[in-house]
Amino acid sequence: MIHKKRPVLKVVKIGGKLIENEKKLQAFLADFSAFKGPKILVHGGGILATALTQKLGLQTKMIDGRRITDKNAMQVITMTYSGINKTIVAYLRGLNCNALGLCGADGGSIISKKREVREIDYGFVGDVEEVNTTFISSLLKQNIYPVFSAISCTREGQLLNTNADSVATEIAKAMSKEFETELYFCFEKQGVLKDMNDENSVIEVLNTKTYKTLLDNGEISDGMLPKLHNCFRALEDNISGIFLGNAGLLQKGTSFTKIIR
Amino acid sequence: MIHKKRPVLKVVKIGGKLIENEKKLQAFLADFSAFKGPKILVHGGGILATALTQKLGLQTKMIDGRRITDKNAMQVITMTYSGINKTIVAYLRGLNCNALGLCGADGGSIISKKREVREIDYGFVGDVEEVNTTFISSLLKQNIYPVFSAISCTREGQLLNTNADSVATEIAKAMSKEFETELYFCFEKQGVLKDMNDENSVIEVLNTKTYKTLLDNGEISDGMLPKLHNCFRALEDNISGIFLGNAGLLQKGTSFTKIIR
Repeated sequence: MIHKKRPVLKVVKIGGKLIENEKKLQAFLADFSAFKGPKILVHGGGILATALTQKLGLQTKMIDGRRITDKNAMQVITMTYSGINKTIVAYLRGLNCNALGLCGADGGSIISKKREVREIDYGFVGDVEEVNTTFISSLLKQNIYPVFSAISCTREGQLLNTNADSVATEIAKAMSKEFETELYFCFEKQGVLKDMNDENSVIEVLNTKTYKTLLDNGEISDGMLPKLHNCFRALEDNISGIFLGNAGLLQKGTSFTKIIR
Repeated sequence: MIHKKRPVLKVVKIGGKLIENEKKLQAFLADFSAFKGPKILVHGGGILATALTQKLGLQTKMIDGRRITDKNAMQVITMTYSGINKTIVAYLRGLNCNALGLCGADGGSIISKKREVREIDYGFVGDVEEVNTTFISSLLKQNIYPVFSAISCTREGQLLNTNADSVATEIAKAMSKEFETELYFCFEKQGVLKDMNDENSVIEVLNTKTYKTLLDNGEISDGMLPKLHNCFRALEDNISGIFLGNAGLLQKGTSFTKIIR
């Protein structure tokens, strides 16, 4: 019996510090466009949104150290993320990569629910409820590569600020029903570091057991915790590989961290 | 012999003064979503872009009364137009209209050329060269309705500010090879007025001959001239009807101007 190999879909999330630096972004996009086969890019833009908020003289509201997305903030986020989105798409087109920029509202691609108000009302913040895999697959079949900004939309038509790591993870999880799917988190570090101050201390493979040990010993920095928690949860679904590293990760020319069960 | 009637595609351009007013925009979008059959929306956002430019303390460069789109201006336009685009798409989704927001870079939908520098360098301003009708038709066949911002893209990946009337006209011209196409210009007036100060002086039908007479007698206001010039040029192609009026035009509940050969 011959098993027909399913195509490998790469879902790549690019971090904020790579987006704000034009040269780093262009180098990353050159690597992304060189990636063969079906691929999806996911980006946020929080740093640039905060900068625009300040330039406009608006306040960034915080409660207990967490950002509150009020109506003004959501407008600034929508403009900033969508502007970044079109800039990325245009740059990819110049590299002969047939990109298409989307937010979750477009074609109902990422439906979300507004986060419930308990002790704190975070405002226009959403959690992904459904990914429109039919629409995304139809694009990939036409060799069109979606570029998603981390904005989702409720069924009632409300745009919501959504964590970009979660958007990438939810897309990868949903698409893994149809494709063999790999998830890439590209950020400013070479991977998960044993020692935050030593770029050469990259942990090459992290599994559930070693993760738990590092966690118990407090050896993982706070900033990495939500990302890794996300990764190990995603592994429970059918995602076939999760990789963390800097932009060089796409070409696997540098060290990186691979997450396995 | 039975002639299969081709579906009528409606290409609708919405003017700036309708966009900047949230209530008017929502009323217009309710009418647009109620429109049956294939449809495409085109919008600009110059007024809001100018407002953001001022808030950011940037200069709007003008030469001989014409706006120059430098790098900063193009960034502000990209953010503003793309933000408006996503806001419109989200609102349409709340009205059960399966909208998809695009700029010309997305899927290479509107390819343009940077305007040649002669006496004045207008900067990042483009003229439409090609409309990707294959891609747009594939969306319409899936009952997805494109919403275009008036930003196009060169083959080399440079985003360009493009006149929204021209974008709508070029899309309508290109799509008329496949669809019977009608072009709608919705703005703040009820149509082409004989007397700019009298809203009841709408010219109901304007043909090449009556247009020439009004032109010769100087009876058309300067603001309307480029729009009408555009319309009569478009009529030379296969566009089957051109209509000008306010938002009510979509339901044809108010007066409007129809342009014929």
